[in-house]
Amino acid sequence: MHTKRHIGYLGPNGTFTEQAAKTVFKENGSFDFNMYDTIRDCLFAANDKTLDYMVVPIENSIGGSVSTTIDWLVHEICVPIQGDIHLPISYELLTNNSQVNIADYEIIYGHPQALKQCAHYLRRCYEGVDLQPTESSAMAAQIVAENTERPALAIANRLTRQIYDLTVIDTGIENNLENTTRFIILGDEAIDLPSRTMKSTMVVSFPGNDLMVLRKVLGVFQTLSLSPLKIESIPMKRKLGEYVFIIDLDTTDENKAYKQACDDIRALKCELRHLGTYPSL
Amino acid sequence: MHTKRHIGYLGPNGTFTEQAAKTVFKENGSFDFNMYDTIRDCLFAANDKTLDYMVVPIENSIGGSVSTTIDWLVHEICVPIQGDIHLPISYELLTNNSQVNIADYEIIYGHPQALKQCAHYLRRCYEGVDLQPTESSAMAAQIVAENTERPALAIANRLTRQIYDLTVIDTGIENNLENTTRFIILGDEAIDLPSRTMKSTMVVSFPGNDLMVLRKVLGVFQTLSLSPLKIESIPMKRKLGEYVFIIDLDTTDENKAYKQACDDIRALKCELRHLGTYPSL
Repeated sequence: MHTKRHIGYLGPNGTFTEQAAKTVFKENGSFDFNMYDTIRDCLFAANDKTLDYMVVPIENSIGGSVSTTIDWLVHEICVPIQGDIHLPISYELLTNNSQVNIADYEIIYGHPQALKQCAHYLRRCYEGVDLQPTESSAMAAQIVAENTERPALAIANRLTRQIYDLTVIDTGIENNLENTTRFIILGDEAIDLPSRTMKSTMVVSFPGNDLMVLRKVLGVFQTLSLSPLKIESIPMKRKLGEYVFIIDLDTTDENKAYKQACDDIRALKCELRHLGTYPSL
Repeated sequence: MHTKRHIGYLGPNGTFTEQAAKTVFKENGSFDFNMYDTIRDCLFAANDKTLDYMVVPIENSIGGSVSTTIDWLVHEICVPIQGDIHLPISYELLTNNSQVNIADYEIIYGHPQALKQCAHYLRRCYEGVDLQPTESSAMAAQIVAENTERPALAIANRLTRQIYDLTVIDTGIENNLENTTRFIILGDEAIDLPSRTMKSTMVVSFPGNDLMVLRKVLGVFQTLSLSPLKIESIPMKRKLGEYVFIIDLDTTDENKAYKQACDDIRALKCELRHLGTYPSL
């Protein structure tokens, strides 16, 4: 008999991250799920090896990179990436059952990324209403559910609406209907995901912080037919103007070429850290 | 007689942005200063031409890019950059005079970037104390000044301490003593800054979103002896994996070469928007 594997994710109940975690690790009794309050807590636990896998958001198509995740990946933790998963994100505007027929809502709660991803709608339909950031979308729903006397709205998802028994005011309120979030799975062992696409992620810094060396790095990829999927600069945290780059590559069937690329980039006197080669769902 | 020029900046009283604004535009009676509550309000006002110049933070050496500023520059507004200024940032831990000799502080207020920039110190000396984000450092100081009965701390600067008459608990608490913030000045007319260094900023997107075209763009800079100072990817806001790049170049004495570079990059079928050529202080 196998012991249960421990899976961590960004809670509370009903987050998109929970959805991502339970898409990868099925609720079939093999896994024990643990929620964490903040991305910081998630990454701290992942680094401490208090569980087998941790699922956190890393990037959204509208809001951009989740800066805490990127920052910790590059500077603070050393657990490899074992997979990523892309999830379509759709938001609903919710209220509690006693506040349905209100003309003037006082306040709208939402995760900062959710407020950003729904900014056009909010400006059009709720101009001037106070926007209050919360730690997660689920937290926004919870506040509105618990304060039944207040004319307040929450931006959250369908799962959260069901958990907190809220009423829908509007759906699909995000700026762009192709809104997608990418989550990564951190852990020490490889995962078998039903995907043929393999990605690799590296962190590179250049000798003398000379950004022109990026041209040579891209030349290495070109020679080896490796396609970069993302190139992002992150501050080195020493002086303004010093950056490291986090680079995702498509390495489906190209694992040898990827290893060669790492060698060639190190030969350019770059510092390189490999963050993982993993299936992408 | 000249009419006064209107200068906007991110308030309230005592912000680093105020310090930046008043370093560029002296308090000699020629300027009328206006404070705005949020970066969003600042950029909205700049775009509406309700004033002559607007000063906002764009980047910190530890916290990285100020995502609202970058986002609006790339996607929402079209006012050129007329200058930038780098300011050393140093934080103090402050309390009000009736809470000086306290062993257990309950809460620490600070701007999210300030909390990030002082994270090492806070973990070392105030592990477990509640950290509460505020809209600005000055706001943190104001809350602590107004709640004299509460054992609370604020992370703010020297200017703010003087304005709110607070007491210093500790100084120089940032992770890195070379902590610097860069501010930009937006407006329609050039400014005469006492600086020989000129910078140019462009926003570029690649045909077919092919990141490998960045190699050719860097090749154009190399041929024309232009040095990139910053290369940052920003989500296109359509689909995950589509990025535009914001690139700063050193164009001191190289204005002709910069114009040539713009032409050559457009010839690669890239979309290019010029955000400004300006003195850097």
